[in-house]
Amino acid sequence: MTFERGNMQIITLKTISAETNIYVGLTFADFKSKIEDMRILNQVRNDIISDITIITDSNVRAIYGKHFSEFNVIELKPVEGSKSLNTIENIYQQLLEYKIDRHGLIIGIGGGVVCDISGFVASTYLRGLRFGFVASTLLAQVDAAIGGKNGVNFLNYKNIIGTITQPEFVICDSRMLDTLPIQEYRCGLAEIVKTALAGNKDLFTLLELNIDSINNKDNSILNKIILEAIKFKVSIIEQDEKDKGIRQILNLGHTFAHAIESNTGMSHGETVSIGLCKSAEISVKMGFLNNSVYGRIKSLLNKFNLPIETKLSFEEMLPAMMKDKKRDDDKINIILIKDIGEPIIHKFNSEELNKLF
Amino acid sequence: MTFERGNMQIITLKTISAETNIYVGLTFADFKSKIEDMRILNQVRNDIISDITIITDSNVRAIYGKHFSEFNVIELKPVEGSKSLNTIENIYQQLLEYKIDRHGLIIGIGGGVVCDISGFVASTYLRGLRFGFVASTLLAQVDAAIGGKNGVNFLNYKNIIGTITQPEFVICDSRMLDTLPIQEYRCGLAEIVKTALAGNKDLFTLLELNIDSINNKDNSILNKIILEAIKFKVSIIEQDEKDKGIRQILNLGHTFAHAIESNTGMSHGETVSIGLCKSAEISVKMGFLNNSVYGRIKSLLNKFNLPIETKLSFEEMLPAMMKDKKRDDDKINIILIKDIGEPIIHKFNSEELNKLF
Repeated sequence: MTFERGNMQIITLKTISAETNIYVGLTFADFKSKIEDMRILNQVRNDIISDITIITDSNVRAIYGKHFSEFNVIELKPVEGSKSLNTIENIYQQLLEYKIDRHGLIIGIGGGVVCDISGFVASTYLRGLRFGFVASTLLAQVDAAIGGKNGVNFLNYKNIIGTITQPEFVICDSRMLDTLPIQEYRCGLAEIVKTALAGNKDLFTLLELNIDSINNKDNSILNKIILEAIKFKVSIIEQDEKDKGIRQILNLGHTFAHAIESNTGMSHGETVSIGLCKSAEISVKMGFLNNSVYGRIKSLLNKFNLPIETKLSFEEMLPAMMKDKKRDDDKINIILIKDIGEPIIHKFNSEELNKLF
Repeated sequence: MTFERGNMQIITLKTISAETNIYVGLTFADFKSKIEDMRILNQVRNDIISDITIITDSNVRAIYGKHFSEFNVIELKPVEGSKSLNTIENIYQQLLEYKIDRHGLIIGIGGGVVCDISGFVASTYLRGLRFGFVASTLLAQVDAAIGGKNGVNFLNYKNIIGTITQPEFVICDSRMLDTLPIQEYRCGLAEIVKTALAGNKDLFTLLELNIDSINNKDNSILNKIILEAIKFKVSIIEQDEKDKGIRQILNLGHTFAHAIESNTGMSHGETVSIGLCKSAEISVKMGFLNNSVYGRIKSLLNKFNLPIETKLSFEEMLPAMMKDKKRDDDKINIILIKDIGEPIIHKFNSEELNKLF
């Protein structure tokens, strides 16, 4: 459900056990008024909010820290290496030092790393605190902050420990992207292209027609794109919150991306871009996808300055693909596409996949 | 909902997001046929179960291990000290070594420690696997295995990290109690007395009238008592799964119990017994409870050979009570009783409580 108020749009994600309001176009500073709204609503419900703790990273704090003075703050390093059980234990300890009780509210303010960590902490500390996100990166706004998946890495396995627990609210302010390093911005664009390929042909066209505006971070076009990407993800999660079926299509390109990421240390968005091309290439070789569409995909990603190929061999990528958590039995589930916006799930064994690489 | 089939009774716990079948009077060995039922049902749903992993403790394995040969087995020490994040990491690692994927099923077979740990692991490994319990102790059958609360201790805080996630099934076989050490058996009785005090006057009478049979572990009376205790707990959880309100009454006696436990190392059941007496004593001093009822409570616990007082002073217990996770702000929520089966929640500050000790 989408609701418009001035420049702001509210998308409500409803699952069997939770309801999340996603605010697109709200300003960052409005997160305080959101908290006030919650306090008033909760007083009515006699469900008070006690301490508020912000979990953020050093980059975000350097820019927005002046707004945090009235709250507890826990600061992380904005790197993938922070996503460890060790970090989680450190945060538990800090929450205990702040004497956070069951009425505490956690707000994760940052990118994917902050959302993944703060969501997991909030889902497990005292068996679950209320929480929300202010997503500060494009990747978080269209993907990491939406859908309730949280977690950390363990023994080189990505996101293998976590829960699926929905936040109460997500605030997406495209103006926060003005200060986002260009490389991180492009990573968000890769996930948006993925969304378009997985289910929204109009979004793909919107991207193709607005390359320059997007590369220049034009605010009005960005809000449109973010809204479209979130709406599609919300529609999938409402059908399959627990990732038992159709939610898999959101992994388009990701089995390859994770394998490249673990072999090279490239950023998630860059490897997603390569993974999308690889999925499209295999779709062509399988006879599902028209070669000219594959060309459009490569061209679009290329115009966003995203990489479209890897020098890694199949043999180098296979071990990581085999331990990817989306694996069933000895087969690997790969999401392919028949056209832009038309995904299909295909099971391969490693020999079959090798021949198509 | 209770459903009877031969000697077995099935209680179904329905929450907003899950449904748990609790089998009372099924034999332990039947857990394999339950798994078969699930496999058949799941084939129909096209939701296969792959590997089955049993998490158990060394005591249970010594007695029942011969039934486990066809499954993966992870063994814990049956002590409270096992409930640590360190144990959780070890189990994650073993699950990875067994190559458990998203279709794996976890079965916790044991007492409260095994249920708390295996429930938490199953809720967080790969963002949640399916799981069930075979509860091997009286405490687990009437309490720990029912209601979805799981978790571990952290920095001397009891059960402070965990989730609330319902198992798919719980099997309670009172014949498993034949081999249960008498001290552990009595601990389960303490929780059953708590249940009676918190909401089931008939159960209290049933206990008073059957002291000898209960002390002799008479199977038919035990099944009746276990069934009554579970039914009451289920009715509370169906009203308040997330522990925001009425579920608190199940903590009757527990704020004192946790404080005594952390100061003395006495077992949970023994300290619950003392905690119940302390709650009743304060209820009398507050003018809520008739002194003769307090006498009946002490007498019943005494006949079960459970301790009914502590030498600890209020000052010794206070620090642990103040850090108890049921605490709101600077007040301590204590559950008192107006009569058997009639609990009330009362907020005290520490001075008020001290005067009543």
